[in-house]
Amino acid sequence: MQEYDAIVIGTGSGMIVVDRLLRENPDARVAVIDRDMAGGICLTRGCIPSKLIISPVEVIYDLENLSEFIDAEVKGVNFEKIMKRMRNKVESESRMIEKSLKEFDRIDYFRSSAEFTAPYVLEVDGKHIRSERIFISSGSRPLVPRIDGLEDSGYLTSDSLLHLEDMPESLVIVGGGYIAIEYGNFFARAGCDVTIIEMLPRILSSEEPEISRLVHQELSEHADILTSHRVVRIEKKGGKKVVHAMGDNGGRSVTGEEVLVAVGREPNSDILRPEKGGIETDERGWIKVNRYLETNVRGVYAVGDANGKHMFRHVANREAVIAYMNAFHDAKIEMDYSAIPHAVFCQPEVASVGLRENEAVEKYGRENILIGFEEIKSTGKGQGLNAKGFAKIIINRETERIVGAHVVGKAASVLIQEVTTVMALNAPFHSILHAIHIHPSLSEVISWACGNLMSVDDYHRKIEKEL
Amino acid sequence: MQEYDAIVIGTGSGMIVVDRLLRENPDARVAVIDRDMAGGICLTRGCIPSKLIISPVEVIYDLENLSEFIDAEVKGVNFEKIMKRMRNKVESESRMIEKSLKEFDRIDYFRSSAEFTAPYVLEVDGKHIRSERIFISSGSRPLVPRIDGLEDSGYLTSDSLLHLEDMPESLVIVGGGYIAIEYGNFFARAGCDVTIIEMLPRILSSEEPEISRLVHQELSEHADILTSHRVVRIEKKGGKKVVHAMGDNGGRSVTGEEVLVAVGREPNSDILRPEKGGIETDERGWIKVNRYLETNVRGVYAVGDANGKHMFRHVANREAVIAYMNAFHDAKIEMDYSAIPHAVFCQPEVASVGLRENEAVEKYGRENILIGFEEIKSTGKGQGLNAKGFAKIIINRETERIVGAHVVGKAASVLIQEVTTVMALNAPFHSILHAIHIHPSLSEVISWACGNLMSVDDYHRKIEKEL
Repeated sequence: MQEYDAIVIGTGSGMIVVDRLLRENPDARVAVIDRDMAGGICLTRGCIPSKLIISPVEVIYDLENLSEFIDAEVKGVNFEKIMKRMRNKVESESRMIEKSLKEFDRIDYFRSSAEFTAPYVLEVDGKHIRSERIFISSGSRPLVPRIDGLEDSGYLTSDSLLHLEDMPESLVIVGGGYIAIEYGNFFARAGCDVTIIEMLPRILSSEEPEISRLVHQELSEHADILTSHRVVRIEKKGGKKVVHAMGDNGGRSVTGEEVLVAVGREPNSDILRPEKGGIETDERGWIKVNRYLETNVRGVYAVGDANGKHMFRHVANREAVIAYMNAFHDAKIEMDYSAIPHAVFCQPEVASVGLRENEAVEKYGRENILIGFEEIKSTGKGQGLNAKGFAKIIINRETERIVGAHVVGKAASVLIQEVTTVMALNAPFHSILHAIHIHPSLSEVISWACGNLMSVDDYHRKIEKEL
Repeated sequence: MQEYDAIVIGTGSGMIVVDRLLRENPDARVAVIDRDMAGGICLTRGCIPSKLIISPVEVIYDLENLSEFIDAEVKGVNFEKIMKRMRNKVESESRMIEKSLKEFDRIDYFRSSAEFTAPYVLEVDGKHIRSERIFISSGSRPLVPRIDGLEDSGYLTSDSLLHLEDMPESLVIVGGGYIAIEYGNFFARAGCDVTIIEMLPRILSSEEPEISRLVHQELSEHADILTSHRVVRIEKKGGKKVVHAMGDNGGRSVTGEEVLVAVGREPNSDILRPEKGGIETDERGWIKVNRYLETNVRGVYAVGDANGKHMFRHVANREAVIAYMNAFHDAKIEMDYSAIPHAVFCQPEVASVGLRENEAVEKYGRENILIGFEEIKSTGKGQGLNAKGFAKIIINRETERIVGAHVVGKAASVLIQEVTTVMALNAPFHSILHAIHIHPSLSEVISWACGNLMSVDDYHRKIEKEL
């Protein structure tokens, strides 16, 4: 049985472990297993291809906001070129990773499925391989719910969508989370007839309600959004798909050329048969890890989507570094999830870090929370761009630390970074007031929010009136 | 002679002193003097109106970069509406400030010129007023150089440009600094035939040379840029203006409907006759202040453009707070100019904080400087937007502090903020690596630059080859 210094399952963030180990230990031998295209989900069917597809429509929204001042006519998007660019970039980057995996003689690269057969032992390509350091970064896959008629009528997921050649004329999206909204926003602004059907009372339900509201409002100018509706049946009719949904006050049937199912993701780890390796998973199949990202089996780590914690590539990358340090440097580094930012690249853009208001209130008590708030249109640059949106900063009154921040509007994913870095530094919120911000720039919305603090109740009275 | 607790000259950042004093001391009496519209230069004829005018064309540049993917036709800008919106915003905000100045009975508001007649004594509206706390925030005005024929042919400045009703068909801009480039960029992208004539070998000469180069390259697709050319004569011919410029290899004559003179700014303080108040100015007329922003006359402070240091509203605001604290709280706070950001709102956008490379090398020695570099197109979001530009981070190798940062490209004025805040916190550059950045977002260009450090020589070899 071949013994390795490490077995890495998955070629996304797992590659960070591979790179570090080979750099630090010139004699190390590593087995790398991935049944899919090299590069992991983010590169091959996640954030990178989706951003390459959706980013161009940002400018359509900006133009719409400035239509009084800029005389322009948008005729449509060149879907074929958008998809071609996406595929070229993804394929060329994936090929580069594959090439390095194949060329490097201290790596055995298996482009296959693997299964645990015993603790520390995996079977792959008919061989048994063993290591006392195993890194599971096996990712996740689109969750496809059981809906009557779905399999028969056919559907897209965020994976198969990447193979589309032509833009559908109409698209029904099942789900209202970030993947549904990013693609819904793209297709709607690109000129496709989009209907979004969300089971919960609001889209982007893991964001602050006032953010969901603004996105809903802006997006509903171009897409039909049904909330509190559950898809109960799908049928094929005359080459199209009819989606039947039920709400509290009756049903709605929507017809579309294509259906995109985007209701969440589920773990890939079942394929690995972790139970045969003695590795515990939770009731949904995510691999359980401790604060050091180690599973219940010593030396076996799970990072990225596999552990089901924060399914973002930037989190997985950090987790991979920490797991590596803990595994090979006998470190006891805890993964800190307190300053993890994320964005939803729809228009207006959404970005968020740390706790939501209700989580902060629950953790620290209502009276210990201050909320800072400012609208983007208060800034001179925001006025210039006629930009909508706001920043909401949640502060622990006693420690003076920012515990969460939520931004919606132009450049939100960049605006959130100042707050994230201040949080990561564990610096007080007034560090942001101390730092000079360019006047007039969109950055001012963050510092002005930090200078405009109020109680939770006052905040709600304010947004009730003003938003 | 009326005695005041404070005399404030200028209603821009000076208003910060007025507000704080009246809030902290319910009995204080203040004289406020401004011969111009209330609100200061930034609001009435500087950054706010200019950003309201120029911001909309950003989207034209974005669209141009995405022309392969978005099928759109830009027919032009609605200049009338842009100017009307600008005037409405400026007038309404100025009126609000004026109203509060007039209504508040502890303020005597003089909308007039004033002159020192003795130390601590000013003459205004025929009255003599006196205070031992005087704040000079009298601003600056466009510098108009002596050019043969200029006065006779007529010209615009950044002040009078705000009164334009129609967009000129052609415009010759004398100067290549940030005002010249912001307006040159706007008019060129808006469809006006623009020629920019800069005396120095490059435009934006106070930015890093590689940034000047990229802006020059991008802007020259829409404007004619003459560097190393000196305007020697202007004449009126058939309703138009002919601008004669001389370069090293001969002359060029350019005809335009209008001429905009934007070669710099000069102090307004001469009007105040500071010498009669015993107040020293430098050879160009800027009021000399010490580290505490106090002039040579005890209790007399100069903030904002008046001291000629960093002519930005965000600096003036901070200076006003510090001068106030030093004057009324007997503090000895030094103004810290090490983390002052600024932006040039052209396309690609420019933003910068701290030292330039040559300043850093001179201050710390070439061997003690590391440069971090990354192109925006390396990031997934940058690829999605097909965005040009880069981030350059200058680090002191020994202290591990960022001493300067320079960004050109999409959202530069927001991207610079993370660096600025880290500098203001005096945190090491690796704080930025420690903070998680959203993948993929434009923010990654900053963290990747901080992770991609090289010597000054290697940096130049790299950009020589790659930029």
